[in-house]
Amino acid sequence: MNRSTPHVVIIGGGFAGLWCTRALASAPVRITLVDKANHHLFQPLLYQVATAGLSAPDIAAPLRHILRRQPNAQVLMAEVTGIDVDAKAVRLDGPVAPQTLHYDQLVVASGATHAYFGHDEWAPHAPGLKTLDDALAIRRRLLLAFEQAEAATSEEERQAWLHFAIVGGGPTGVELAGTLAEIARHTLREEFRRFDPRQASVRLIEAGAAPLGHFPPALQQRTRAQLESLGVQVCCGSPVAGITDRGYLLRDRFVPCRTVLWAAGVAASPLGALLGAPLDRAGRVKVNPDLTLPGHPEVFVAGDLAAVTRPDGRPVPGVAPAAKQMGAYVARSLRARLGGGSAKPFVYADYGNLATIGRMAAVVDLRGFQISGLLAWWFWLAAHVFFLIGFRNRISVLLNWALAYWTYQRGARIVLGQDRSTRDPP
Amino acid sequence: MNRSTPHVVIIGGGFAGLWCTRALASAPVRITLVDKANHHLFQPLLYQVATAGLSAPDIAAPLRHILRRQPNAQVLMAEVTGIDVDAKAVRLDGPVAPQTLHYDQLVVASGATHAYFGHDEWAPHAPGLKTLDDALAIRRRLLLAFEQAEAATSEEERQAWLHFAIVGGGPTGVELAGTLAEIARHTLREEFRRFDPRQASVRLIEAGAAPLGHFPPALQQRTRAQLESLGVQVCCGSPVAGITDRGYLLRDRFVPCRTVLWAAGVAASPLGALLGAPLDRAGRVKVNPDLTLPGHPEVFVAGDLAAVTRPDGRPVPGVAPAAKQMGAYVARSLRARLGGGSAKPFVYADYGNLATIGRMAAVVDLRGFQISGLLAWWFWLAAHVFFLIGFRNRISVLLNWALAYWTYQRGARIVLGQDRSTRDPP
Repeated sequence: MNRSTPHVVIIGGGFAGLWCTRALASAPVRITLVDKANHHLFQPLLYQVATAGLSAPDIAAPLRHILRRQPNAQVLMAEVTGIDVDAKAVRLDGPVAPQTLHYDQLVVASGATHAYFGHDEWAPHAPGLKTLDDALAIRRRLLLAFEQAEAATSEEERQAWLHFAIVGGGPTGVELAGTLAEIARHTLREEFRRFDPRQASVRLIEAGAAPLGHFPPALQQRTRAQLESLGVQVCCGSPVAGITDRGYLLRDRFVPCRTVLWAAGVAASPLGALLGAPLDRAGRVKVNPDLTLPGHPEVFVAGDLAAVTRPDGRPVPGVAPAAKQMGAYVARSLRARLGGGSAKPFVYADYGNLATIGRMAAVVDLRGFQISGLLAWWFWLAAHVFFLIGFRNRISVLLNWALAYWTYQRGARIVLGQDRSTRDPP
Repeated sequence: MNRSTPHVVIIGGGFAGLWCTRALASAPVRITLVDKANHHLFQPLLYQVATAGLSAPDIAAPLRHILRRQPNAQVLMAEVTGIDVDAKAVRLDGPVAPQTLHYDQLVVASGATHAYFGHDEWAPHAPGLKTLDDALAIRRRLLLAFEQAEAATSEEERQAWLHFAIVGGGPTGVELAGTLAEIARHTLREEFRRFDPRQASVRLIEAGAAPLGHFPPALQQRTRAQLESLGVQVCCGSPVAGITDRGYLLRDRFVPCRTVLWAAGVAASPLGALLGAPLDRAGRVKVNPDLTLPGHPEVFVAGDLAAVTRPDGRPVPGVAPAAKQMGAYVARSLRARLGGGSAKPFVYADYGNLATIGRMAAVVDLRGFQISGLLAWWFWLAAHVFFLIGFRNRISVLLNWALAYWTYQRGARIVLGQDRSTRDPP
């Protein structure tokens, strides 16, 4: 491996970037994988860290450790601040010293972030869930809300601390709402002296007609029923019209609430805009059918950042299996080029959808094969533990779930860090 | 239990405060336990969180959960900002709304913090280890130092990132140095492309004659030998004379170093100064032999905040067993008063000392019965797992240790949060 070996720079160590890197293990290329975190994150279980069921290290693994036996891959922990597709250069900044990487082939897989539909002023009052730091911030808010309720000096104030609103009825919103209801009903039992945690109310707000709108109608019904049996109020058909530090506005009514979580909008990573190509409304890069940037065959976009359409016109969804498939596809395409060939267009293989709702409840839709309830939950658990990276993580997650099942306890109810915004304003 | 029941306010949910609270479970008192964290922390294993061997929740348990079946105890998560011993009032602030608690009996057990011997300007460059947030900040610095070394553009810079100095040769300094050497030698093997992590050097700096100065001389020798066999440079007999963001000054020589950890000085919590009583040089409150504040029999001071002398003139050390004994003593004393009696002076029962050094190495001194090496390590492990609070925590710690032993891996190598001070200055 010498300096004349083609240099592939991959931005993002998520499912797309990491699967691409690993699929290039035996290819005659030099790979530099850049990520601003030091770890690959198993995002499907992030809501468990936010709701204190798992520790942050349970669902993450250091990128360098995953790639330690792949000598053609180097990992750099850095933030990408610029991409110059004409000069074939990527500009890096903190935490390391600023520097520039020159590439022969570039794979941009920096994922997605939250979107507040033009209401960025809602962001401080309604945090979203994309990174481990987000999850720890949400955990802190949830746990501190109950602490505030215990210390509240008026009943009105206490009720505002005991009302939780989750905006967005996608999988993340459903998971957060179901788990929060379980915490209030079971986990915190007997722990407070001035109120009963079962007084807490959890509301899931979905602008569309039902939660999990991308599932078949029968499973949407089951989801709603399972959420309601856990004690969640499901409010559909109206979007939230305002969010402040005192509450939210829904159907012209202001509801006092100190803890609003955002699971409604996703926008592509801002790196897409640096590529100079057309973007869709969510900021995703409109790529060619082979996932390359129009006019730049040496630049690939993969994962949540890529706007790709299926033959029937529907978009490829922003889910982990799609990102892994795109990452592996880009690697195949790069290998084909090294051999002088080219790859056929990317085709998304849709194996179905699964989402969990709460304690032993989930919905699974595998190309028409539909299950819900306990059996679906076991399927969901097996799939998630199987796809976790790292033996330790699998053991630890199983152990935590087993203990949570027996004891109704959640092992990570520890407030970490400071977040002054949860302080009740004077 | 009504409002005329005596109100006992206990400040601090560490070993002293929590043991006192639990020992009052069946006493006819109302207890309010105040802590600025939501958890009791098992400090003896804090260095494992700092060195990525354990997750933060592994060594902590929510105070409310520990006390959920003790109806006479209420937990408030708040910071104490004032104590008025004449008005018998404690002033609370964030994270909850400001409020005042009135007490009949007060137990102040707010513990200790770092001391920089009048050099507070060293604090940002040499973080200490007392809380979970401290541990996560140190973990971030240690992991980022290796990331910086990989991205360094000069060999000189890389060496500065690969030199680690630990100031203070007490148990915490010895644990940190031994574990860091193990990480550099084993854990990070194969993971970097531009240097070999075994190039990293770890130096333990102790101003006194030997590390673990409070152990018998034979065990001090064994400690030094075990540290050196792990690859730690042990520098004794000279204090550090300066610390900046570029390195430290030792014996008139400036050593380039980006990661200095502080394990040298302990000062009592600043709450001691609010009590208006005489303090010793470390800021601890000079209490009466029954742990009460001079002139205020209704105020007790327990744990690391109390300056107590043994019959032979030596001070009671700031260790967990002493804090537990003081907490239990204060509870006995309060019970005796409720029955119209009074308690004999506090007597510290010294069962010995133990400290761990690194992979399967420790020293144990039990009233003259001395062991070191592997057997001592097993003893140390058993003692620590036994005293951990919570079944989940014991299981999780044992699992993590077993996996670390087999694989040389450390399960929590995840950088969390931001710390711009680790950024290389321009």
